[in-house]
Amino acid sequence: MRIFLVGMMGSGKSTIGKKVADVLDLEFVDMDAEIERREKRSINRIFEEDGEEYFRLREKALLKELVQKDNIVVSTGGGVVLDPESRELLKKEKTLFLYAPPEVLIERVTEENRPLLKEGKEKIYEIWEGRKHFYAEFRRIDTSRLNEWETTALVVLEALDGKEVLVIEKPHRVEIVLGGFKRVRDEELVFTTERVEKIYGRYLPERRLLFPDGEAVKSLEHVTRAYYELVKMDFPRDKVIVGVGGGALTDFTGFVASTFKRGVGLSFYPTTLLAQVDASVGGKNAIDFAGVKNIIGTFRMPDYVIIDPVVALSMDEGRFEEGVVEAFKMTLLSGKGLDLFDDPEKIEKRSLRVLSEMVKISVEEKAKIVVEDPYDKVLRHALNLGHTLGHVYEMLEEVPHGIAVAWGLEKETMYLYRKGIVPKETLKWIVERIKQIVPIPVPAIDREKARNLILNDKKILKGSRVRLPYVREIGKVEFLEVDPLELLEVVD
Amino acid sequence: MRIFLVGMMGSGKSTIGKKVADVLDLEFVDMDAEIERREKRSINRIFEEDGEEYFRLREKALLKELVQKDNIVVSTGGGVVLDPESRELLKKEKTLFLYAPPEVLIERVTEENRPLLKEGKEKIYEIWEGRKHFYAEFRRIDTSRLNEWETTALVVLEALDGKEVLVIEKPHRVEIVLGGFKRVRDEELVFTTERVEKIYGRYLPERRLLFPDGEAVKSLEHVTRAYYELVKMDFPRDKVIVGVGGGALTDFTGFVASTFKRGVGLSFYPTTLLAQVDASVGGKNAIDFAGVKNIIGTFRMPDYVIIDPVVALSMDEGRFEEGVVEAFKMTLLSGKGLDLFDDPEKIEKRSLRVLSEMVKISVEEKAKIVVEDPYDKVLRHALNLGHTLGHVYEMLEEVPHGIAVAWGLEKETMYLYRKGIVPKETLKWIVERIKQIVPIPVPAIDREKARNLILNDKKILKGSRVRLPYVREIGKVEFLEVDPLELLEVVD
Repeated sequence: MRIFLVGMMGSGKSTIGKKVADVLDLEFVDMDAEIERREKRSINRIFEEDGEEYFRLREKALLKELVQKDNIVVSTGGGVVLDPESRELLKKEKTLFLYAPPEVLIERVTEENRPLLKEGKEKIYEIWEGRKHFYAEFRRIDTSRLNEWETTALVVLEALDGKEVLVIEKPHRVEIVLGGFKRVRDEELVFTTERVEKIYGRYLPERRLLFPDGEAVKSLEHVTRAYYELVKMDFPRDKVIVGVGGGALTDFTGFVASTFKRGVGLSFYPTTLLAQVDASVGGKNAIDFAGVKNIIGTFRMPDYVIIDPVVALSMDEGRFEEGVVEAFKMTLLSGKGLDLFDDPEKIEKRSLRVLSEMVKISVEEKAKIVVEDPYDKVLRHALNLGHTLGHVYEMLEEVPHGIAVAWGLEKETMYLYRKGIVPKETLKWIVERIKQIVPIPVPAIDREKARNLILNDKKILKGSRVRLPYVREIGKVEFLEVDPLELLEVVD
Repeated sequence: MRIFLVGMMGSGKSTIGKKVADVLDLEFVDMDAEIERREKRSINRIFEEDGEEYFRLREKALLKELVQKDNIVVSTGGGVVLDPESRELLKKEKTLFLYAPPEVLIERVTEENRPLLKEGKEKIYEIWEGRKHFYAEFRRIDTSRLNEWETTALVVLEALDGKEVLVIEKPHRVEIVLGGFKRVRDEELVFTTERVEKIYGRYLPERRLLFPDGEAVKSLEHVTRAYYELVKMDFPRDKVIVGVGGGALTDFTGFVASTFKRGVGLSFYPTTLLAQVDASVGGKNAIDFAGVKNIIGTFRMPDYVIIDPVVALSMDEGRFEEGVVEAFKMTLLSGKGLDLFDDPEKIEKRSLRVLSEMVKISVEEKAKIVVEDPYDKVLRHALNLGHTLGHVYEMLEEVPHGIAVAWGLEKETMYLYRKGIVPKETLKWIVERIKQIVPIPVPAIDREKARNLILNDKKILKGSRVRLPYVREIGKVEFLEVDPLELLEVVD
């Protein structure tokens, strides 16, 4: 695979190019830097000493060399499009134009204190005017409202043609397909969020309803709005509503689709790692009510789910970590993919190979558990690994769910180690990896508050004991009935 | 079986007694009338000529005779409780005290222009004071807010001990049990209506939520209220919510129970004949939204349904007819119970034997259809028999659903007869019986309005043709694709 990025200075060609290369395990080439290295002098000096024409020749020669290579991501020089022959070469390649309007470019370049600014800001407008019709010949990605990871996700998505990772049919159809997100274009009706539309709007079908991001969507108010819109368009029972977003949005969409006309078609394109490894598989849906989370909902398997790990690339750091924690939990339960967590740099750089494996292993494990226990009677409690103390952290510290679960996992394992149930090597293996995934140390906790929380929280406390899932040996879940107050011993 | 009714004059002993006897196929005995017949003189004359003591002796002698008999309903004289020996005899029997406060009695007796009033209204208070402690020794039925059929239902319910008519397990457990309604006392939580509580409040458990009667309950507003109450009492997932009422209430309860905590336990005690023969079996539930009926709902089989035909006795005339129409439709579909419709007087007098048979046949047929087609794909369309034109009548004439369906059934059959599809004897059999069940003649219809309605109504019109179910031969449903506008030909 070869990917070429074109665009003005400040459009992010180098930064994005490097990220894309890391994600896809490709080599990164910065053409300007490569020319400087070969000429052993700076671009400015080449221009001064031999003129632009000479530089363009060198540039074209390098380009001809690069299109013969494989497995590279290339950041071109801003002016490469000026040469007709270079343009023709690039048009035969996967070339993407990173667009931003000149005012945005100026802002970015000013922040970075790049030398070009010496020539004055007006210069950028002038250059833009001279090149924009050439850039227009390439597929454009508008970066003006996107951050680096969001742009990276779009570039990777554009570059991939659809590569199947896994297809399962039970408990319902799930396809993990790199680049599969693009199929959403052909769907009947999409429910999605403002954030998803901002990034992936170009792939969404015309018929779409926008809802708020995050947990806010899981309310009767938004359900009512969705019902109104569906009645208005007389949405037929045999068509499919597609939820495109994170776990909150898919939960919400599942509830609406399972109750409108006693159930219309339902599908998900989960966009967060957390939703990909967990929420999108298994048919549980819910909204919140009267301050109680997930209190209203149904069990309704989606007709099909398309998981594209590429779209998870666009996530913010914290939310991404959450997904990794969930995937880590799934590895503990399944005993599969232990090696994925041996190289934290790969995870940090969001290697798509690693991500795909995480998603694959998690989906397989979740599917297995749901098939055995579709109505969440017993076995699904295994999925609560780390959640008992995690819930306490979530309430007291107001950290994201995933972080709290990581802490809970660490502390619960510690508790079981002290009780002589979990061996030292398991504890060590788990704790080390958690520290790498979530580098924020577990905070000290107010025991009195935690005690009151546990005593008042019905989710934790059924009777006076909870069924605590744990892994003595990675890949084998067991349960222990414990007094939740006793668990607090380890929290300090 | 022997049932004795005691109570003051005007308490309805004779009227209710006769109805109860008709319902249970028992002989009715009015003790005062029987004594008059034997003595060949009126009670007043007996009192004048031989005094009260003589009368009480005669009365006691008759009572001793009656407690030796079987299969009778006895309306006692108002003063029978004055005699200690008579009281003791009655206490060993199924004796019910029809209570109403003196002011209600005066009102009733005044309306009926009974002779006793000559002695002045105060006399009733005096008599009441003299007897009330004797009446208090018997199981009391407060008739003051009940009409005759409501009181009749209560008397029959009190008299019956629970007689099983049918138990099926598929698509879910249904028990048809005469007197089975009394079991509702032991249920966890009941959703019911004001009307049901007014009549059957004595059998309902403490924990109950009241909702409006009729279609009004099927709204998101009431669903929201139900959710709030359930959250407030932290209703557990493994307990059962019991819907006690007509089809609207059970539809509503089904929706709430199937969505709260992703489904808590669910059971129905349907109280209308229509709900008993149709709505309570099969797991479809729904609420209305934005003016569209049943647009929001789920499929969720109840855990069990207890059908007691006795409680259907309390229905108003019109609503009762609706249920009979539905049962008639089920007989046409199943070919079972044709003879039940040969004796319209039995139906009119609500013979419990006939009612039970109707309910039994309907439930069996409905259950069979649902088992074959749980998600209402094709076969359940058979249940639309009479509903295509019925729906037109319902909208244009604003008559109850059941009446409209009866008319629709008659007219659809007429249409198919004219097309040479349904033979004359089938038409004749159906039309004759419908005229007896619903004695209101089919009204003339405004064809222009009907045409517009059909053209605009999506329920009727899918594409330009509808699948019209019909029976050429009773017990065998077939379908015909027709242009709904053509159907209008027969409507005049």
